[in-house]
Amino acid sequence: MHSSSLPHTNPTNKLQDMASAIRFLTMDMVGAANSGHPGMPMGMADVATVLFSRFLKFDASDPTWPDRDRFVLSAGHGSPLLYSLLYLCGYNDIDVEDLKQFRKFSSRTAGHPEIDQLAGVEVTTGPLGQGFANGVGMAVAERILAAEFGDDLVDHYTYVMVGDGCLMEGISQEAISFASHNQLSKLIVLFDDNSVTIDGNTSLSTSENQIDRFNAAGWHTQEIDGHDFEAIEGAIRNARLSPRPSMIACKTVIGKGSTEKQGTAAAHHGAFSASDRANMQQLYNWQELEFIIPKTILDNWRAAGTRGVPQRKSWKRLFADLQPSKAQEFDRRMMGACPENLSSALSALKQTLLGSPPTATRVASLKVLETLQPIMPELIGGSADLGSSTQTHPSTASTFSRENPSGRYIPFGVREHAMAAIMNGAALHGGFVPYGGTFLCFLDYARHSIRLSALMNLPVIYVGTHDSICVGEDGPTHQPVEQVASFRSMPNLNVFRPGDLIEAVECWELALQERRPALLVMSRQALPVVRRDVETNWCKLGGYVFKEASSARQVTLIATGSELSLALGTATILENDGLPTAVVSLPNWRLFDAQRSDYKEFVLGSSETLKVAIEAMSPIGWERYVGRDGIICGIDQFGHSGPASDVYTHFGFTDKAIAQRVQDRLKR
Amino acid sequence: MHSSSLPHTNPTNKLQDMASAIRFLTMDMVGAANSGHPGMPMGMADVATVLFSRFLKFDASDPTWPDRDRFVLSAGHGSPLLYSLLYLCGYNDIDVEDLKQFRKFSSRTAGHPEIDQLAGVEVTTGPLGQGFANGVGMAVAERILAAEFGDDLVDHYTYVMVGDGCLMEGISQEAISFASHNQLSKLIVLFDDNSVTIDGNTSLSTSENQIDRFNAAGWHTQEIDGHDFEAIEGAIRNARLSPRPSMIACKTVIGKGSTEKQGTAAAHHGAFSASDRANMQQLYNWQELEFIIPKTILDNWRAAGTRGVPQRKSWKRLFADLQPSKAQEFDRRMMGACPENLSSALSALKQTLLGSPPTATRVASLKVLETLQPIMPELIGGSADLGSSTQTHPSTASTFSRENPSGRYIPFGVREHAMAAIMNGAALHGGFVPYGGTFLCFLDYARHSIRLSALMNLPVIYVGTHDSICVGEDGPTHQPVEQVASFRSMPNLNVFRPGDLIEAVECWELALQERRPALLVMSRQALPVVRRDVETNWCKLGGYVFKEASSARQVTLIATGSELSLALGTATILENDGLPTAVVSLPNWRLFDAQRSDYKEFVLGSSETLKVAIEAMSPIGWERYVGRDGIICGIDQFGHSGPASDVYTHFGFTDKAIAQRVQDRLKR
Repeated sequence: MHSSSLPHTNPTNKLQDMASAIRFLTMDMVGAANSGHPGMPMGMADVATVLFSRFLKFDASDPTWPDRDRFVLSAGHGSPLLYSLLYLCGYNDIDVEDLKQFRKFSSRTAGHPEIDQLAGVEVTTGPLGQGFANGVGMAVAERILAAEFGDDLVDHYTYVMVGDGCLMEGISQEAISFASHNQLSKLIVLFDDNSVTIDGNTSLSTSENQIDRFNAAGWHTQEIDGHDFEAIEGAIRNARLSPRPSMIACKTVIGKGSTEKQGTAAAHHGAFSASDRANMQQLYNWQELEFIIPKTILDNWRAAGTRGVPQRKSWKRLFADLQPSKAQEFDRRMMGACPENLSSALSALKQTLLGSPPTATRVASLKVLETLQPIMPELIGGSADLGSSTQTHPSTASTFSRENPSGRYIPFGVREHAMAAIMNGAALHGGFVPYGGTFLCFLDYARHSIRLSALMNLPVIYVGTHDSICVGEDGPTHQPVEQVASFRSMPNLNVFRPGDLIEAVECWELALQERRPALLVMSRQALPVVRRDVETNWCKLGGYVFKEASSARQVTLIATGSELSLALGTATILENDGLPTAVVSLPNWRLFDAQRSDYKEFVLGSSETLKVAIEAMSPIGWERYVGRDGIICGIDQFGHSGPASDVYTHFGFTDKAIAQRVQDRLKR
Repeated sequence: MHSSSLPHTNPTNKLQDMASAIRFLTMDMVGAANSGHPGMPMGMADVATVLFSRFLKFDASDPTWPDRDRFVLSAGHGSPLLYSLLYLCGYNDIDVEDLKQFRKFSSRTAGHPEIDQLAGVEVTTGPLGQGFANGVGMAVAERILAAEFGDDLVDHYTYVMVGDGCLMEGISQEAISFASHNQLSKLIVLFDDNSVTIDGNTSLSTSENQIDRFNAAGWHTQEIDGHDFEAIEGAIRNARLSPRPSMIACKTVIGKGSTEKQGTAAAHHGAFSASDRANMQQLYNWQELEFIIPKTILDNWRAAGTRGVPQRKSWKRLFADLQPSKAQEFDRRMMGACPENLSSALSALKQTLLGSPPTATRVASLKVLETLQPIMPELIGGSADLGSSTQTHPSTASTFSRENPSGRYIPFGVREHAMAAIMNGAALHGGFVPYGGTFLCFLDYARHSIRLSALMNLPVIYVGTHDSICVGEDGPTHQPVEQVASFRSMPNLNVFRPGDLIEAVECWELALQERRPALLVMSRQALPVVRRDVETNWCKLGGYVFKEASSARQVTLIATGSELSLALGTATILENDGLPTAVVSLPNWRLFDAQRSDYKEFVLGSSETLKVAIEAMSPIGWERYVGRDGIICGIDQFGHSGPASDVYTHFGFTDKAIAQRVQDRLKR
C-alpha cells in the first residue's frame, strides 16, 4: 500500500509539485498580463516552498496576527511569487480570479506588491534594496517589542528575499552593516543568487563575493543549491539557530523550468511561448490548463496555510490571559493609536516654553521626545550620526544595541538611506512610531525611502535640521535650498516648517496625530519665541494670521520657519511707514490647502492685498499663495560658506531689505 | 658637518616637521574661525605629507595640468588639510591670509572644499561618500582617455582620502564594487581609519571589517599605522604597483597632537584651548605663533610643490610634438568645447525623423548617441542596468570593461547613486561629457549626487525615462509623480521634458551645448511626432507657441512631454466648440524664465486668456504660468498599476476630459 513509487508521497516530490504550482501560476499570470517578471519567482519557487511549508509562522486566515513571521519580497518585481504563495496558502483576500487580473488596472495583484491592495503583502516593494532594509527595521521592531512585552508574546523571524540587484544598491550595504552590528539574529536573508539582471549576466557589472562581503560585516552565511530541498531546509534551520543575522546564498537558475529562457536575462521579464509551457508541463509532469492546480497539490498548500493555526491559537490564549492593561497597551500600539494624554502633555510643555529666550526650533525635538518618553514608548528613533546636532537623542532614552534590546535611541550610523528604510520597516511591523534625524540637506540621501514612506503612508517622522543657508560656515554642500520645495511635491508627505519653539511643538503634535509620514524642518540657529498664546494648536490649520494689520490690510507677509520673526520685524517697518501689514505663518501647505476657501482668503487677504512670501529657499510653488503679482523673497541658487548672519544678509533676508522691496513695488 | 642629530636632516624628522605644519595650520585655522573640523586633518597629516612630498604628481604652479594626479578629499569636512597642503606647496591661488579667512564669508577657504573657490580643489566635497565615487569616475576617465590618446600623454593616479563616515554611506559600496570589477588599478584609497565619527566611537554603530569588505570585492588592501612614515611610503608604493584598485587602511588617531582631545569625538570639530596648542608646541618642538611656518619647513614643502616641474615640462614637450590635429582635439576635449558640427549633425538627424510614426521620446537618446558617436568621443555613459529600457546603449559603442578600456558604454550595474557620482568624477577629470540613464523614478536614488552635479555645474546628462504614470503596469513604485517638480527646484539643473521625437533631439542638443547639468525626461510610451518644422531649435527658448489659435485667443493650453499631443487634441475640440485655443510647448522652465517678459507674455497670452497647464505629474509650481485663476491638470497623488492608457484615463488625461474642464470653467 505505502509505495515510494507514488510520486506525491515522497516528501521531495511533494515539495517539487508544490513548487511547480508556483512556476505554472507565474507563467500563467505573466502570460495573461503579457508582461511581468517571471524569472525570479520560477527561480526561487523551491526556496519559497520550503520556507512557507516548513518554517514560516503564519496563519492564512489572519494575515495581521501580530506574532506572525514577516516575509519581505525585496525583489518586488517577482510579485507573482508572492501572489502565488498567498493564493495557494489560502489567504482570503486573493483567489484565482485575482491572479488572472495580474497587472490589470485596479486589481489586487499589482505589478509590484502593494500593502494597501492585498492582505498578506507586508511591504510595498519594487525599488531594489529597499525591502532588505525594511526587513532590518522589522527585526529591530520585533526585538524592541519583545524586550518590552516579553518574548512569549513577541517572538518571530523576518525573512527577506533579495536579488542581485538588491545587493548592488548601496542601501543593502547600510542594511548589512547595521544588522550585524546589532546582531539581529532573527533576520534571515535569502539571496536569489542567479547571476542575472535585466541587462544580462551579473559578470557585466559585478564580481563581488557576496558571502565574503556578508562575512566581513559579521553575518552568519551559507551557500546552497537553491533547487535542493534538503539543502534549503537545512540552511534555514541553521540560520534560525544562529545568534547572528543570517544570509543564505541560494544558487538558482533564473526562470527555472522554462526550457527556452531559463538561466538567461530573457527570463527576467516577458511572457513565454506555448511551446515553452508545453515543455515545462512535460518536465514537471503537469497536466493542467492555465491557472488550474491539481487538488492534491492545492491541499498540500492549504495545509501549509493552516499549519500555524495552533500556534496562533495558543498565542491568542496567552494574550487573553494578559493583564488587561498590558493587553490594552499592546492593542493600542499595534493599532497605532496615540495615547490619550498626548495633547495635554504637549500643551503643558508649550506652557513652560512661553517666553523662552531665542532658541533653535531643533531644540523642540529634544523637549518633545523627553516629554513623551514616559507616555509614548512607541517613539523609537535616532539619527544618522548627528544625534546632538539634530537634537534627537533624548537623555532619558537608553541606546539600542545588541546588549540593550530595550533601548529606544537608535544610532543609525552615517546611513541616512537605511535609516529611513529601517524606520519604514519598524512602522510596517507595527507597535512603533519611528523618527530619524539628519541635516535637511542629507535627507536627499534617503529620498527614495522617504518616497516609500509616503507611498505606503506610514507613520514615520523625519527630522531635518539645519534647514537653510543659515547653516552658515559649512557652506552650500550643507545648506538646503531646494529640499523643502522638493518634499512639498511628494504626495502624502506632511512637510512642517515651524517658526518658533511653540510652533515646533505644535508641529510635532500634528506629525504624531496625523499618522502619516511627516517631515519636520527645523532651524539650526536660535529663533525668537514669538508666539504669545498656547491654548490653540494654530499650526493645525496649516496657516493662520499671526499678527493682523493695524487697519485695513494693504500687505500680507507670508512666512515659514526662521522667516516668521523676520516678517514680524518687516511688518513693523511697513506699519511705521503707513502700510497696514499682516503677518501670516504658514508652517504646512498641505493642511492649509485643505481648509475652506473663505478661511484661506481671510488668512491671505483679498485680491487687492499685496502678498509677499518670505522663505529663505527655492521660490518654486509660492505663486500659489502670492499670485502672479506678488513678491517671493526666496533663493534660487546655491548658498555660500560664511557666518549665518552674513549669508542671510547677502541673500537679502533683513527686515529693511524686504520692507524696501515692498515699498518699491507699491510705489510703482 | 653632516650630523644625524640635526633634526631636520633626518628624513623622518623632516617629514614629521612637515606634518606638524599641517597640524598647526589646522589648529590655527579652526581657532581663527572658531569652528571647523580639525580631527581628520591632524590625524591624516602624516599620510598626506608622504603622499604630497613623495608620490603625488603635480606642479603647484599649474593646477590644471591635465596629467596631474588627482587628489580627492572625500571627507570634505577635513578641508583644513587640503588648504594647508595647497598653501604649503605654494599654489598661487592661496596664501596665508586665505587661511586666516577660513570659513569666513566669500573667502576662498570655505567650510568644505569648493571647486569654484580655489584652484587645486579637484572636487566639491562634504556630503560623505561622494568623493569616493567621484574618484572612481576620475579613474574611469583617466583610463578611457589613456586608451584614446595614449598612456604617454595620459598616465596618472587618483588618490582618494575617505573616513569612517564615507565608508558607512551606501554609495561607497557601489563605488567599491564598480571599481574592482573594472580593475581600476590607478585608484588608491587612503582610509582614515580613526574609529571616530561625530557621535562618538564607531563601535556605536558599526563593526565591519573594512579590509575584508574590500577584499570581498577584489581590491588590493593593506593595513598600516598611519603615523609611521616608512609604512605609509611602503604602502603607497605597493598600491601603485597593484593591478587592482588599492585601499590602505591607515590606523590614525583623530586630532593627533591635541593632548586634550586626540582620539575622541571631541576632536572632530571645534577649536582648541590655548593650553592645548602650547602642549602640542612642546610635543612637536614648535616655537611659532599662529599661522607662521619655520622657513626650513616651508622650503621643504615648497620643494614638494615644485617636485613635479620636470615631469610637467617633459609632458609639455611631448604635447608640443603631437600631431596638431590630435593636440587640438585633446585641448578641445579638456576645455569642454562642443564639436563644431554638433548642430548640423543633429539637424540632419531631425530631418530624418520628420514624419516618423509614433515613437517614445526615449528612442531619441539612442538616435542622438549613435549620430554623435563619430564626432563626440567625449560622450561616455551608460545606465544603471537598464540599457535597453532607457535606450542609452548605442549599438555602435563597445562596452567599457577591464579588458576594453576604450569602451564608451559603461554598465554601471544597479547602482544609480554611484553612477551619478562617477559621472561627476569623469566630468571633473575633464575630457568627457558623461551621461547616465535610469527610470526617472529611480533618479531619486542618485539625488544627492545630482545635487552635486548642479552645485559644481558639471556637464553631465541624466536620462530619466518612463517619465510618468504611463509607466503602466509596474505601478506606483515605478511611476514618477513628484520627480520633475522636485528637480525643477534644484538650482542650475536644466530639466527638459520634450513633447515628441523632434523636441527630444533638440533638448539633447541643448543639454550638450549648455555645458551644465541636464536632466532629459523621456517617455516610455510612443508619442505622435507632432512637430512639422525642424529648421529652428524651438526648445532653445524653453517654451514656444506650438500652434496658434484660429482667431483671438481665449485659451492657452500649456503642455510638456507626452501631454503636448494631448493638448493638441484638446485644442481641436475647443476650437470646434468655438473657443480659439493656442497650444504652448514648455519643455524647459529655466530657459523660458530667462526670456524677455514680452516674449513670455506673447507665448502665454494676455491676462484675459484662460491658461491651462497639462502635465501628468505634481502640479507644484505651475501657478507661475497659469496664475491663480488658471487650471492645472496634474496629479497630486501616487499612481496606479495597470495598462498605461487605463491609468492615464483614470487621472483625467483625455482630450475630452480636459476640454470639459475648460468649458466648465468658461461657463461659470
